[in-house]
Amino acid sequence: MNFELPNLPQRPEKPRQYGLTMMMDKGMSVREAENFVEGNAPYTDLVKLGFGTSLLVPSLEAKLNIYREAGVHAYFGGTLFEAFIIRGLFDEFRRYLDRYGMEYVEVSDGTISIPHEDKLKYIEELSKEYIVVSEVGSKVANKVIPNTQWISMMKTELEAGAWKVIAEARESGTTGIYNKDGSANLQLIEDIRTHLDASNILWEAPQKPQQVWFIKHFGHNVNLGNIAPSEVIPLETLRLGLRGDTLLDFLPDAE
Amino acid sequence: MNFELPNLPQRPEKPRQYGLTMMMDKGMSVREAENFVEGNAPYTDLVKLGFGTSLLVPSLEAKLNIYREAGVHAYFGGTLFEAFIIRGLFDEFRRYLDRYGMEYVEVSDGTISIPHEDKLKYIEELSKEYIVVSEVGSKVANKVIPNTQWISMMKTELEAGAWKVIAEARESGTTGIYNKDGSANLQLIEDIRTHLDASNILWEAPQKPQQVWFIKHFGHNVNLGNIAPSEVIPLETLRLGLRGDTLLDFLPDAE
Amino acid sequence: MNFELPNLPQRPEKPRQYGLTMMMDKGMSVREAENFVEGNAPYTDLVKLGFGTSLLVPSLEAKLNIYREAGVHAYFGGTLFEAFIIRGLFDEFRRYLDRYGMEYVEVSDGTISIPHEDKLKYIEELSKEYIVVSEVGSKVANKVIPNTQWISMMKTELEAGAWKVIAEARESGTTGIYNKDGSANLQLIEDIRTHLDASNILWEAPQKPQQVWFIKHFGHNVNLGNIAPSEVIPLETLRLGLRGDTLLDFLPDAE
Repeated sequence: MNFELPNLPQRPEKPRQYGLTMMMDKGMSVREAENFVEGNAPYTDLVKLGFGTSLLVPSLEAKLNIYREAGVHAYFGGTLFEAFIIRGLFDEFRRYLDRYGMEYVEVSDGTISIPHEDKLKYIEELSKEYIVVSEVGSKVANKVIPNTQWISMMKTELEAGAWKVIAEARESGTTGIYNKDGSANLQLIEDIRTHLDASNILWEAPQKPQQVWFIKHFGHNVNLGNIAPSEVIPLETLRLGLRGDTLLDFLPDAE
Repeated sequence: MNFELPNLPQRPEKPRQYGLTMMMDKGMSVREAENFVEGNAPYTDLVKLGFGTSLLVPSLEAKLNIYREAGVHAYFGGTLFEAFIIRGLFDEFRRYLDRYGMEYVEVSDGTISIPHEDKLKYIEELSKEYIVVSEVGSKVANKVIPNTQWISMMKTELEAGAWKVIAEARESGTTGIYNKDGSANLQLIEDIRTHLDASNILWEAPQKPQQVWFIKHFGHNVNLGNIAPSEVIPLETLRLGLRGDTLLDFLPDAE
Repeated sequence: MNFELPNLPQRPEKPRQYGLTMMMDKGMSVREAENFVEGNAPYTDLVKLGFGTSLLVPSLEAKLNIYREAGVHAYFGGTLFEAFIIRGLFDEFRRYLDRYGMEYVEVSDGTISIPHEDKLKYIEELSKEYIVVSEVGSKVANKVIPNTQWISMMKTELEAGAWKVIAEARESGTTGIYNKDGSANLQLIEDIRTHLDASNILWEAPQKPQQVWFIKHFGHNVNLGNIAPSEVIPLETLRLGLRGDTLLDFLPDAE
């Protein structure tokens, strides 16, 4: 803080267990990652190397070192896991994780179909060696998962060893927990919240109105993900009531 | 200019009093600011450190020095002023400005309610030591300010000492002088123009069609703000008739 | 590739004659261009310096050297050609190209009207010294060009010496080969494909759904352009079936 403004909402210190911000890296170069952490490391807990980008970026090792030294936990997006699994290459996936010294791993079934018992086994197996974030929800716009199934999947995946469960929204923010216009699927989100500890859920919220909605309804320490690099600090101002949308929400004596 | 193309519209030299471009910095790191000024300083007059980001960015002093040395005037966004005022901390706000050697300051009431006489007093007081940009218009989409009130607020704020008055549109460009779909509120803008010297108004115009509209209606030297970093040079090509949208508008013998 | 995942679709080696990705540079600074090529050079064939930005960017020569050394072919956007032509300055345009050692040049008539025989002469003349990309299609939303005319223009421009023909869509992706909502003009695209060798066409496809559409309909080696800098690697993951949208499209035994 460059000035101690009183009455700001409290944020836990890093490394945080809740109040998490996950940034989505869609293929930044090493220098872009350096520039990013220089300004944003204090406000970034997790970085997802989106979809299969980790296979393509030159100097992946250098980029991962930059995140590591900045205290930011990087992991490969779930689509990469799915690209290995659909080829029957689970062992090769683990070799890839280990070659780059990954500590975190995402398990998802947003694009391919995996029997849920198998997904739970992957989570159980991987959680012995890595910190697992698992993702629930389909990337396919028209594939409707009943609310009760969302909840039971999330519960069993946490029980199987997942550290956090991610609620799918894609980079666009128009599927999963959102309607096609990007507005929140209120009943689904309310149902999830009723049956699960909110600190274990990380909500994908790429659009600013989605971030505002979650902060107003779940508090400033809600876990949010799929945040664009340039939106990490703006999100932090939303959490702290330092932006118009939330300025009046966190005052002790708001009008 | 890398080639002297004849018959381009004239732009005043920096430091400019009109024909201003204000870039919105939402939390760039020091290196990102360095990269920005390297390419864009000749075309950037003002930089707004949006909302409360100045409190959060590491190395704020280093960033401000980069802008200063590049001849770009940085100031803290009005929401920061409001965050101090609603806490009753006007003196602390001035201390914050002085600690960082700020020359420019923004006064606004886009989110909190300030009696207009009080706002004028803040402008009067601050204009003794700083160059004041004041902002008129609410960030709240449904709060309608009558056109006559827009005009009288702008007039009195200039009389109170504001150097320029900003017409609010938010980062999104969907409130204030714009309708919810981002189109211009024609009657309001026309009324403002009739009663005020256009060179004293800085229009927030984050969306490209808004920039094109103002350049076509108010000329290439209209003051425009809330421009994203990557849109500063594209905006300059619009001003100079070097982009499809305005190529035919500034020719001496356009077809 | 940071891991040899089997059964990925084959991409030709650079320098490529098809499977091209053209990035749109809207005025990046020298350092931003450096950062870009560090991560994206293997996946970028062409860079268009959009509209008239090349006239405005400081250190144009340094930027062009960065692209050159990275094996990326830069050229000035067609609007710049039009800005010279409408002033009757064809010779000056060539002097400008030569001053900066340009090897590629774009010829277009998206904004100004040029009789097609004249456009063909420009292409013929320039193709003696440069590699010419010509662009077909109007930037004006309401200007409808019949499908047969699109095809005959493309054919004759290739015959006149153009290396590739670009199908116009603007930076926004809402004109030319797309409808106003950004969806593909199916009949037009199908007609073009029927009458021309697809490897000679470069489709402007700035929006992700447009990129997905072309990859699904024309294969992973379709030539695509007007790609934002941060979308070049995401596009490559689409081409390789390493993103949800295309993961199941390129498997040997997709379900």
